[in-house]
Amino acid sequence: MVNYPHKVAKKTAVSTQRKQPTDFANRGMTFEKMINESNQYYLSRGLAVIHKKPTPIQIVKVDYPQRSRAKIVEAYFRQASTTDYSGVYKGHYIDFEAKETQQKQSMPMKNFHQHQIDHMAAVVQQGGICFVLLHFAKLNETYLLPALALISYYNIDHGTKSMPLSYIQENGFLVGKDQLPSIPYLDIIEQKLLGGI
Amino acid sequence: MVNYPHKVAKKTAVSTQRKQPTDFANRGMTFEKMINESNQYYLSRGLAVIHKKPTPIQIVKVDYPQRSRAKIVEAYFRQASTTDYSGVYKGHYIDFEAKETQQKQSMPMKNFHQHQIDHMAAVVQQGGICFVLLHFAKLNETYLLPALALISYYNIDHGTKSMPLSYIQENGFLVGKDQLPSIPYLDIIEQKLLGGI
Repeated sequence: MVNYPHKVAKKTAVSTQRKQPTDFANRGMTFEKMINESNQYYLSRGLAVIHKKPTPIQIVKVDYPQRSRAKIVEAYFRQASTTDYSGVYKGHYIDFEAKETQQKQSMPMKNFHQHQIDHMAAVVQQGGICFVLLHFAKLNETYLLPALALISYYNIDHGTKSMPLSYIQENGFLVGKDQLPSIPYLDIIEQKLLGGI
Repeated sequence: MVNYPHKVAKKTAVSTQRKQPTDFANRGMTFEKMINESNQYYLSRGLAVIHKKPTPIQIVKVDYPQRSRAKIVEAYFRQASTTDYSGVYKGHYIDFEAKETQQKQSMPMKNFHQHQIDHMAAVVQQGGICFVLLHFAKLNETYLLPALALISYYNIDHGTKSMPLSYIQENGFLVGKDQLPSIPYLDIIEQKLLGGI
């Protein structure tokens, strides 16, 4: 039972280049796994209900073998039109995207696309708590950057430029490192975002 | 480009019986389509941001054809662990499931499973606005039933009994019939649920 995140699809789109998609997938999984475990921690303790949305799949062909369940035999990964994670914390709507980079000084903005930026703007306008979790793997640092700061930077040149770490540090918040949960982002929401609403 | 809802998977699981899965799927799509159009209406006017989650798929095998995108060649529909719809309305977390029946006097509770009931209970405990939209196709009536009323009924016998229409009418709210949006459920949230929180 293999669960491919849609990051795999994006990476393999350039797999004719001299890159190893497997490496990218594993790196991505590690950060994703930490977030999923943090969400599970929050859920099991009744602190928040936040889930990763299923990967959007475009289904083309389904077989219906007799006496067994439907089998999808042709399908493709689709680009997400919203963000990866959403849920509820103390009645507030929580919505975020998570991105990881191997860069040390910046986050490539090609990680975000116009649909997601539009979605985040709509969520903010509707009073939701919206942000991105940005993980710098080589620094082992994770930042929570509010959506408005991301959108502002994206709008400079529609996402073609990398976002410097210094910008993220000025406009975002370093997420602490805990054993459990490994990405304690609710602390930032509670202390920084809800205080500021 | 065919988009199979996970209802298809459930129905085809019993397709060795003398039923026509296609009919069920189409019926389901109609109500689903009305909800999706209502959500699109709310989104385009900045009234709410509510989306249907992607159908959860268990991916088993992916091919990576040279110079083209990843192709999923074996996958199966998974049972959803949460609900189908979620989003934000005036900062509030909104979470609901939609079910349609051809019955005139009751809603079969086999439409709901324990995972979803647990999810709804967790959302309510966290202060989210959680409910089900129940569509009686032959009556052309849609009811919004708050999650707590659904959970109470489910807990009587763990979902083996059908829920009578009279129970739904006593504990829920009839959703009006508009041209746009076709399922104006935000009216009920605004008038009945937010007033009561």
